[in-house]
Amino acid sequence: MDTDLNQEIFSWPIRVYYEDTDAQGLVYFANYFKFMERARTEWLRSLNVEQDKLLYEQKRHFVVIEANAKFLKPARFNEQLVATARLAGLTRATFLIEQNIYRKNLDGELLCKGLTTAAYVNADTQKPVRVPVSFFKEPKNVL
Amino acid sequence: MDTDLNQEIFSWPIRVYYEDTDAQGLVYFANYFKFMERARTEWLRSLNVEQDKLLYEQKRHFVVIEANAKFLKPARFNEQLVATARLAGLTRATFLIEQNIYRKNLDGELLCKGLTTAAYVNADTQKPVRVPVSFFKEPKNVL
Amino acid sequence: MDTDLNQEIFSWPIRVYYEDTDAQGLVYFANYFKFMERARTEWLRSLNVEQDKLLYEQKRHFVVIEANAKFLKPARFNEQLVATARLAGLTRATFLIEQNIYRKNLDGELLCKGLTTAAYVNADTQKPVRVPVSFFKEPKNVL
Amino acid sequence: MDTDLNQEIFSWPIRVYYEDTDAQGLVYFANYFKFMERARTEWLRSLNVEQDKLLYEQKRHFVVIEANAKFLKPARFNEQLVATARLAGLTRATFLIEQNIYRKNLDGELLCKGLTTAAYVNADTQKPVRVPVSFFKEPKNVL
Repeated sequence: MDTDLNQEIFSWPIRVYYEDTDAQGLVYFANYFKFMERARTEWLRSLNVEQDKLLYEQKRHFVVIEANAKFLKPARFNEQLVATARLAGLTRATFLIEQNIYRKNLDGELLCKGLTTAAYVNADTQKPVRVPVSFFKEPKNVL
Repeated sequence: MDTDLNQEIFSWPIRVYYEDTDAQGLVYFANYFKFMERARTEWLRSLNVEQDKLLYEQKRHFVVIEANAKFLKPARFNEQLVATARLAGLTRATFLIEQNIYRKNLDGELLCKGLTTAAYVNADTQKPVRVPVSFFKEPKNVL
Repeated sequence: MDTDLNQEIFSWPIRVYYEDTDAQGLVYFANYFKFMERARTEWLRSLNVEQDKLLYEQKRHFVVIEANAKFLKPARFNEQLVATARLAGLTRATFLIEQNIYRKNLDGELLCKGLTTAAYVNADTQKPVRVPVSFFKEPKNVL
Repeated sequence: MDTDLNQEIFSWPIRVYYEDTDAQGLVYFANYFKFMERARTEWLRSLNVEQDKLLYEQKRHFVVIEANAKFLKPARFNEQLVATARLAGLTRATFLIEQNIYRKNLDGELLCKGLTTAAYVNADTQKPVRVPVSFFKEPKNVL
């Protein structure tokens, strides 16, 4: 793997609202995948990749082709969590993102260990296309 | 209002899964709007209106422009509900649908009283277009 | 209505993720109700009301008993929105919250006008109980 | 593994509504996990296991501790799908369920291959407890 790639851990705060929980009083398991996707989106934004521009101007989007998660500890209603994204692998048309969810902050209890594989796809043909390496080499947007 | 219109009550069964509930142990209020939309979709299907064909072949879709609901009694995890749809009004480009949700069946306890206003819209321009009256005069699909 | 009550407009930023949109390319209408609930929750937090403590320590929760919304303009994938909450009425056991959603910020285009009625409820009996007026008179948390 | 266990494939129909899709025009990936959970719930119901009774009367629930899925082909708005559940492994306190999603019916195109690990848990202590083997040996409910 190209060692020049931006492999820092990106993190994004997540608050647990009623919408995220279920009758067990805990975060509904499928919603952790939404939390991971928010972190991926914000991580891409931090690398200057805005997915609406990709989709509407360049007819490209990311498609999740594999999603795996281990749920180690439950999160409860109203808790503050943090979700991470870190590039863990890159092929011609796919990339692998390591994603964890912690209670409170990065020093908090590890609640969920996730691994997401996304493909970079032509939105018209749904065929995979080469991931622009620049995505992961850009200096961070300083806003 | 045209009295020839199909104004029967259409009903559609809904099972409450974990995904529909929240940490209060009850159905999360916003999810009743999803239940009502499932009933609307199936009601339209019973009138031979398939929304994917409308959207992809005719570039038309329905857009909810107003949604109101009173939540009278809570529904719990794993309960069987029924959601209804009945045409309650029709203008040139909008239609009003009365939608109730009952516990178990139409004779069960009334849980939620809803009223949805949908516009019929050109999917490219997002401008309202005339609702084909035929939607509501078709004989029921015997399939 | 008691004119001492805290009637300022509270606002909370909302980013539109894929999870919030539907095949029309727009925010799915029922998800605006989730956005409004996030704003209500954060507004209550700004008034020192933490709903998990209420629920688990005092056996009290808020139940939405009526939700109304007019959807004026669509929001699209990846847009930045803001949702508001303002106390618009208070009875013995219910309160009425005016909630709007704007594009970008409070000066942006008004997308959705909402009105939520919530009851304050004993979580064990599901019976309404008196809303502590202190909720809305507390000085703002300076955190 | 005990070869007496009920290892048939259970299947459950799923209709794709707007709520399930996203701005890519396809089913939002995390929602496949909800589809799988509906199939698991109905499979358990077919084995006479009602999860609300378990939760409220016996203080037991199932907790997903690992969820994996490969998304092979996209499903679109308004399509009819079918989701399956089949017991693929059983330990003292966990069980492994193989879950696939097909277009139309079991002979249709395979869209998603999933594997879910659930633990059987004491709802008060959140500690794992022994899965009653009877769950998977009961004759089918003839209702």
